[in-house]
Amino acid sequence: MPYVPSPLIPSATADHNFSTANLPYGVFSTSSNPTPRIGVALGDYVLDLTSCVDLLTQSVEGLTAEDVTSKDLNCLMGRESKVWKGLRRKVFELVTGESGLTMDNFVSLDSVTMHLPAKIGDYTDFYSSREHATNVGTMFRGIDNALQPNWLHLPVGYHGRASSVYLDGCDVVRPQGQLQKNKDDPKEGSVFGPSKLLDFELEMAFFVGGPANPPGTPITMAEAEDRIFGLVVMNDWSSRDVQKWEYVPLGPFCAKNWATSISPWVVSLEALEPFRAPTSAGSQKDPEPLEYIRDPTYSSYDIALEVTIQGENMSKPEVVSKSNFKNLYWNVKQQLVHHSVTGCNMSPGDLLGSGTISGTPQDSFGSMLELCWKGTREVPLGTSGEVRKFLKDGDTVSMSGVCKKEGVGCVGFGAVTNKIYPAGTKLKAGGANGVWKAA
Amino acid sequence: MPYVPSPLIPSATADHNFSTANLPYGVFSTSSNPTPRIGVALGDYVLDLTSCVDLLTQSVEGLTAEDVTSKDLNCLMGRESKVWKGLRRKVFELVTGESGLTMDNFVSLDSVTMHLPAKIGDYTDFYSSREHATNVGTMFRGIDNALQPNWLHLPVGYHGRASSVYLDGCDVVRPQGQLQKNKDDPKEGSVFGPSKLLDFELEMAFFVGGPANPPGTPITMAEAEDRIFGLVVMNDWSSRDVQKWEYVPLGPFCAKNWATSISPWVVSLEALEPFRAPTSAGSQKDPEPLEYIRDPTYSSYDIALEVTIQGENMSKPEVVSKSNFKNLYWNVKQQLVHHSVTGCNMSPGDLLGSGTISGTPQDSFGSMLELCWKGTREVPLGTSGEVRKFLKDGDTVSMSGVCKKEGVGCVGFGAVTNKIYPAGTKLKAGGANGVWKAA
Ligand SMILES: [Ca+2]
Ligand SMILES: [Ca+2]
Ligand SMILES: [Mg+2]
Ligand SMILES: [Mg+2]
Ligand code: NI
Repeated sequence: MPYVPSPLIPSATADHNFSTANLPYGVFSTSSNPTPRIGVALGDYVLDLTSCVDLLTQSVEGLTAEDVTSKDLNCLMGRESKVWKGLRRKVFELVTGESGLTMDNFVSLDSVTMHLPAKIGDYTDFYSSREHATNVGTMFRGIDNALQPNWLHLPVGYHGRASSVYLDGCDVVRPQGQLQKNKDDPKEGSVFGPSKLLDFELEMAFFVGGPANPPGTPITMAEAEDRIFGLVVMNDWSSRDVQKWEYVPLGPFCAKNWATSISPWVVSLEALEPFRAPTSAGSQKDPEPLEYIRDPTYSSYDIALEVTIQGENMSKPEVVSKSNFKNLYWNVKQQLVHHSVTGCNMSPGDLLGSGTISGTPQDSFGSMLELCWKGTREVPLGTSGEVRKFLKDGDTVSMSGVCKKEGVGCVGFGAVTNKIYPAGTKLKAGGANGVWKAA
Repeated sequence: MPYVPSPLIPSATADHNFSTANLPYGVFSTSSNPTPRIGVALGDYVLDLTSCVDLLTQSVEGLTAEDVTSKDLNCLMGRESKVWKGLRRKVFELVTGESGLTMDNFVSLDSVTMHLPAKIGDYTDFYSSREHATNVGTMFRGIDNALQPNWLHLPVGYHGRASSVYLDGCDVVRPQGQLQKNKDDPKEGSVFGPSKLLDFELEMAFFVGGPANPPGTPITMAEAEDRIFGLVVMNDWSSRDVQKWEYVPLGPFCAKNWATSISPWVVSLEALEPFRAPTSAGSQKDPEPLEYIRDPTYSSYDIALEVTIQGENMSKPEVVSKSNFKNLYWNVKQQLVHHSVTGCNMSPGDLLGSGTISGTPQDSFGSMLELCWKGTREVPLGTSGEVRKFLKDGDTVSMSGVCKKEGVGCVGFGAVTNKIYPAGTKLKAGGANGVWKAA
């Protein structure tokens, strides 16, 4: 469904993040109605799905009132893909035609408080950008051994912490923990203190949809697209010094379990389809993946990604990285299929992160670790005069993603933006959405 | 509360798993009432807490009807520890005195179907038995480098998959996945096939209780006991060949995410208190743990653990391992505190596994990997004439735990028992509890 103007919502122009070509799902509330409910973003407005339940359930096969009136997207996510796809098509029809919808069905985007789109049952993070894995491998093992032997054979991943996936807007507190005493000799043990190497990771993540596969029955490549509900932008907050000391041999643990943050609007694969593009690798030939994970339509999506940092004394955010979702060697379908290969049941509402998305040029690296090359160079923050190696207290980090293409409406994700507070800061759950904020 | 006979339930003798010294919580249903509800096991009966809600809420401070009438333990777990402890004391008083309870408040243990005790938000597994870590390290790196440099400084752990934590009785399907082609040279890549090195891991796990700590505010050692609701026996099913190929550098993923199984009754720390015992290490002096994780009452619990295997052609289960919960270097409090040190929010219903519990003698090793010493020796299955290295299709693996001590009533966990089916077997969710079974 390419872009068409919406007679009711003229602000939904072709170059708006939320053009009629997008129609992302989110969960919102308003001061006049604090109950979280499902909406679709359109221009400067949100279509409140609870305002037109009958219209939707009467015309979308398989859609129930519960799917549309729940306080999160889990119920809708749990339906067969034809239900969520059908709902999006119906919304498109309603907002682009003479539909019976009026402005009473919409609330202003300005006036909404966003909530986490779903209860996240399990959260997984991959490591699927070859450029990123090569950078990290080169730093720590040298260029000749940059990629581990398994890396080109499977999407390396690890389970993360679902409880600490927070929404755009939440504050984050610099973690404290165990840090290796002598950086060159782990045998000297550790000291306790605030992490000095605080980092972001520029990622995207997708929500799993569709009924869960039974234990022991993997998802096939043919089924994968119907099990992907939609994508968000994600910041996988990371503490490099905590990670360095703890991660052998079982992987990252306390270095990453304290926060992960996501943007609030979930963009469907159908909205992304016009932006399908070759990956930065182009093809997977050397080696060819094993059959269960071979993708006959191997590709990714052309999603421009950007990271900004604004220090406390800076007047505006400055861009530190521009990357693209194409910079993934393993795509979302391959990640999902591999995750289930041994029989893992994948449930609606599970969140699967891409891994840090880095490109080839230095200014497309997706983490401070790479941008400052392990602390060996200073990263200028635009024309502010400030520089960074790792993140400072008071820094606000923002990540955004957008798809643009001649003749197709814009499909934007919006942003995930969070501010860092000093170690020991107490947070309080506040506002209608319970987002954690420094007092 | 030491053992006292129950006038109403004479089967709850001092040496019964469910003596009055135990009083574990579980979730059950019956054919006449298929609604899952909370019960306390006592002798050959289960006290149905929904049958005496008023009695309980009137006399236990802070206890609400919802805590007692929910379909899982999450609500009760989320209360301050004084509420769950108060409830257990009240139940003790009721079942050991002249209380107004009658047999109408009980159902026969024979007649109940058990359910998962809680919705598990996040599942984490540690690696806290020094004997186990030393065995594994010796096999793969030699005795001189058996423990990694960080191991004695922090409880090494990793996040696991919550969706695939199943209950006692579920069937498990041999996983398929990527296996290293040449075991001595990872550079030759991988092949697809059924895991040949299928293993159990003898573990225990605890459920987190109490209100969640806010993000950024770690749990202290002083607070830890009030955040531990109770323990179960756990089998962390593992595929050693999948693990070997995939786990560098981010840890175990598909090797372990396909199944973890737990026993149904949750035993409280108060019930375990009379069995408090020194750990197999005795003390933590070399090195002394950092202050945040130092335990002034450093100890564990004397829980005898046993693993049996019954092959399809065997007439009875045969013991392959006898271990003890004392064989943990890092105890449950230290695990919980370390998990939260960087600010991770720990939620009621989270499940934290101990790691494989191995002792020093060969017959106390907690996995086939150790028992067969990486495939170099055959493990006899009792007098059956059968031997194993790793697990075979058709094997039933059972793990149980029990505390016994002169003058104190028995505190038993019961068992977690599961049968292995061949790769590709389709499972169906069946019975009142939706446990997955081969057709
Ligand atoms: Ca994270
Ligand atoms: Ca497992
Ligand atoms: Mg990451
Ligand atoms: Mg384990
Ligand atoms: Ni989880």
